[in-house]
Amino acid sequence: MKRTAALPLGFALDLPDWVPAELEALPECLPDLRARMAVVLRFARLNTDHQTGGPFAAGVFERDSGRVIGIGVNRVVPRNCSSAHAEVMALSLAQQRLGVYDLGGPEMPVHQLVVNWSPCAMCFGAVLWSGIRSLAIAGADAEMMAITGFDEGPMPADWRGELTRRGIELIEGVMREEALADFRVFAATNPEVYNGRQGQPLNC
Amino acid sequence: MKRTAALPLGFALDLPDWVPAELEALPECLPDLRARMAVVLRFARLNTDHQTGGPFAAGVFERDSGRVIGIGVNRVVPRNCSSAHAEVMALSLAQQRLGVYDLGGPEMPVHQLVVNWSPCAMCFGAVLWSGIRSLAIAGADAEMMAITGFDEGPMPADWRGELTRRGIELIEGVMREEALADFRVFAATNPEVYNGRQGQPLNC
Repeated sequence: MKRTAALPLGFALDLPDWVPAELEALPECLPDLRARMAVVLRFARLNTDHQTGGPFAAGVFERDSGRVIGIGVNRVVPRNCSSAHAEVMALSLAQQRLGVYDLGGPEMPVHQLVVNWSPCAMCFGAVLWSGIRSLAIAGADAEMMAITGFDEGPMPADWRGELTRRGIELIEGVMREEALADFRVFAATNPEVYNGRQGQPLNC
Repeated sequence: MKRTAALPLGFALDLPDWVPAELEALPECLPDLRARMAVVLRFARLNTDHQTGGPFAAGVFERDSGRVIGIGVNRVVPRNCSSAHAEVMALSLAQQRLGVYDLGGPEMPVHQLVVNWSPCAMCFGAVLWSGIRSLAIAGADAEMMAITGFDEGPMPADWRGELTRRGIELIEGVMREEALADFRVFAATNPEVYNGRQGQPLNC
């Protein structure tokens, strides 16, 4: 067999073993936005406690009813996939569940993505393409990066305006202090984080 | 069973049925960069010919030997996954094959991503996090968007500089006219394209 015949034809991304029990314990709807963020923070903490990925989680909800559509956690390191950020996991799981590539399509309720910090450069784009129409985050300044060392990458200069122009509502500061407290615990116990290219010369 | 117990726990993304035969026909190495782009253009064309996704393909190669590591095509619509762009497919397949989340890790050869146009806002971030150390594209201006109607989204103002600062080489204009010719054929035969939020008001 030629070696190129062995090239990969697909890949799969999954949630950790501790997730099903957590999902079963959730109510069908979480009408309160802080309750949604509390679930996201809990999943992020559990993900590092179980060493099943980085300290990030994200959930897709129907904005107005609070119905839980899908929850994801960061899976980059355990699944060897640098794009398996929490937002990409949650959006992909929600799209698979609903059988759509556009969560903002005709006749659909407004879907909201809740994340325990602002999306990185990649996930910002992923949000734009997902059809999400509401984005709720714990914070969006450099403090998380300063605490954890994670690199969020270069954002478009007016990323908030880009969301507005595309009809995506932005809600900032949801449980900000609680999120930062969790990042401080993470940083104290997980000194090494993975970042992509950090300016190493090409021939290093 | 509670409904939340039915929340999705994973998702899988695959390449179309016509891909294995194409991969088997490839040589193990493609030393010439134009030959790599020719393969990418062929996969992009076949993807629309077979109606298995959008007109984009991407390949990961060892830059210096031309060894083929993984090739991906856009799978957004057939797999209901808005992040299944060609670049994310190719990078994820390459990382899975090599068993790494960082294609630029210690002891690794320089890996190059070859794409038939510049990455969108999401894929630009995905490139940064992937460990790719060389990016070769057919073009990077607005002409592809003007021809096809695809929205590439908001890029960081100095995205070329961001690549340089992170040690990622950028090679532009590889088979640019051939790529544009293919996009013109695509646009003439596929008048409708999917884009995410295009500024529709939130309450539309």
